Amino acid sequence: MTMKERIVVQASEMFIKSGIKAITMDDISRETGVSKRTIYEIFSDKDDLLRSCIGHMDAKFRKEKEDAQAKAKNIIDLVFTFIKIGVKAINIVNPLFNSDLKRYHYSIWKETYQMSSEMHRSHIQKVITRGIDEGLFRSNIDVGIVGMLLSEQLRIMSDENIFPSVRFSKAVIFENIVINFFRGIATKKGLELIEKYMDKEADELLTV
Amino acid sequence: MTMKERIVVQASEMFIKSGIKAITMDDISRETGVSKRTIYEIFSDKDDLLRSCIGHMDAKFRKEKEDAQAKAKNIIDLVFTFIKIGVKAINIVNPLFNSDLKRYHYSIWKETYQMSSEMHRSHIQKVITRGIDEGLFRSNIDVGIVGMLLSEQLRIMSDENIFPSVRFSKAVIFENIVINFFRGIATKKGLELIEKYMDKEADELLTV
Repeated sequence: MTMKERIVVQASEMFIKSGIKAITMDDISRETGVSKRTIYEIFSDKDDLLRSCIGHMDAKFRKEKEDAQAKAKNIIDLVFTFIKIGVKAINIVNPLFNSDLKRYHYSIWKETYQMSSEMHRSHIQKVITRGIDEGLFRSNIDVGIVGMLLSEQLRIMSDENIFPSVRFSKAVIFENIVINFFRGIATKKGLELIEKYMDKEADELLTV
Repeated sequence: MTMKERIVVQASEMFIKSGIKAITMDDISRETGVSKRTIYEIFSDKDDLLRSCIGHMDAKFRKEKEDAQAKAKNIIDLVFTFIKIGVKAINIVNPLFNSDLKRYHYSIWKETYQMSSEMHRSHIQKVITRGIDEGLFRSNIDVGIVGMLLSEQLRIMSDENIFPSVRFSKAVIFENIVINFFRGIATKKGLELIEKYMDKEADELLTV
């Protein structure tokens, strides 16, 4: 790992744990043992470092998804793996990370948000199409419309005006969205598999 | 019917058909055969008349819903009646009605929107609770969360940034939302009923 990579990995963990505003370049220098002068030789400013961190997190998340996709026995298996990845991410990432990003680094937030929603949407469409091919999702749904509906529900989940954190657990909302969504578009065979997974993973699932 | 009621009924029909901006007080006077002077004795201005029209439409829609609720044999029967009422409304109301209301009568739009979303949300929760009582919806769902998710999906449906009218039929989106949502929360018995209704009403349904 180069020094740049090491700084990015450690800074990413710090931002994820405590949000962005609370972490100063001094904190990062102390934690990594790299002098501030050297950090500023590699990254022009905190925004520059933050961009590298987001790129690193994205790549890690994408790899995790691709591995899951390759390993999954069928689409329902994959959906339940995604639920676990999603719940883990919700529990690990400090909500301040997203709110700080939007509030203090708006242009980075906007780039990230647009890129990730497009990636998200096309990924959802691929998952639904694979499920139809496997005979587990109904073939008579409009993939464009239902894909958009899932992606919008996942966006709404983080909207404090709709689901204020003080009243709702994000992880519970997430499970409600994903499980009900896939039950909604499942064929009879798909539904039987969902029930089987829900029984099997009942201990790990928060809701239902 | 009083003269006031007659004006409200006819003006409502005109607004629904052509939007709000295109209809002048002169048009309403001509159509109703009531002089503009008399109209202005009853309504202080177009906003005042518009408020009465919205009150009238709301009452009509609420009565239609209550009648359906009283007549329905079970919750799935009711859901399919709602789908028909909803698709009819989407097809009858000129999209300009909502966009004109928001653009040119923002304070009325805001009142109406807030009132109707609250009414909407509490109504959805009642429907879901009735379905659980009838054993047709799963009892282990979070009524607050899933109710909010349905109500938000129905709001998104009209968002031109998400579902531009030129590419998506509102009625098709509406059916996708409602049918997938209720399939998602249905028990086995509920799902069998949904399938039965979908076969029976296949000619009338646009999608699925």
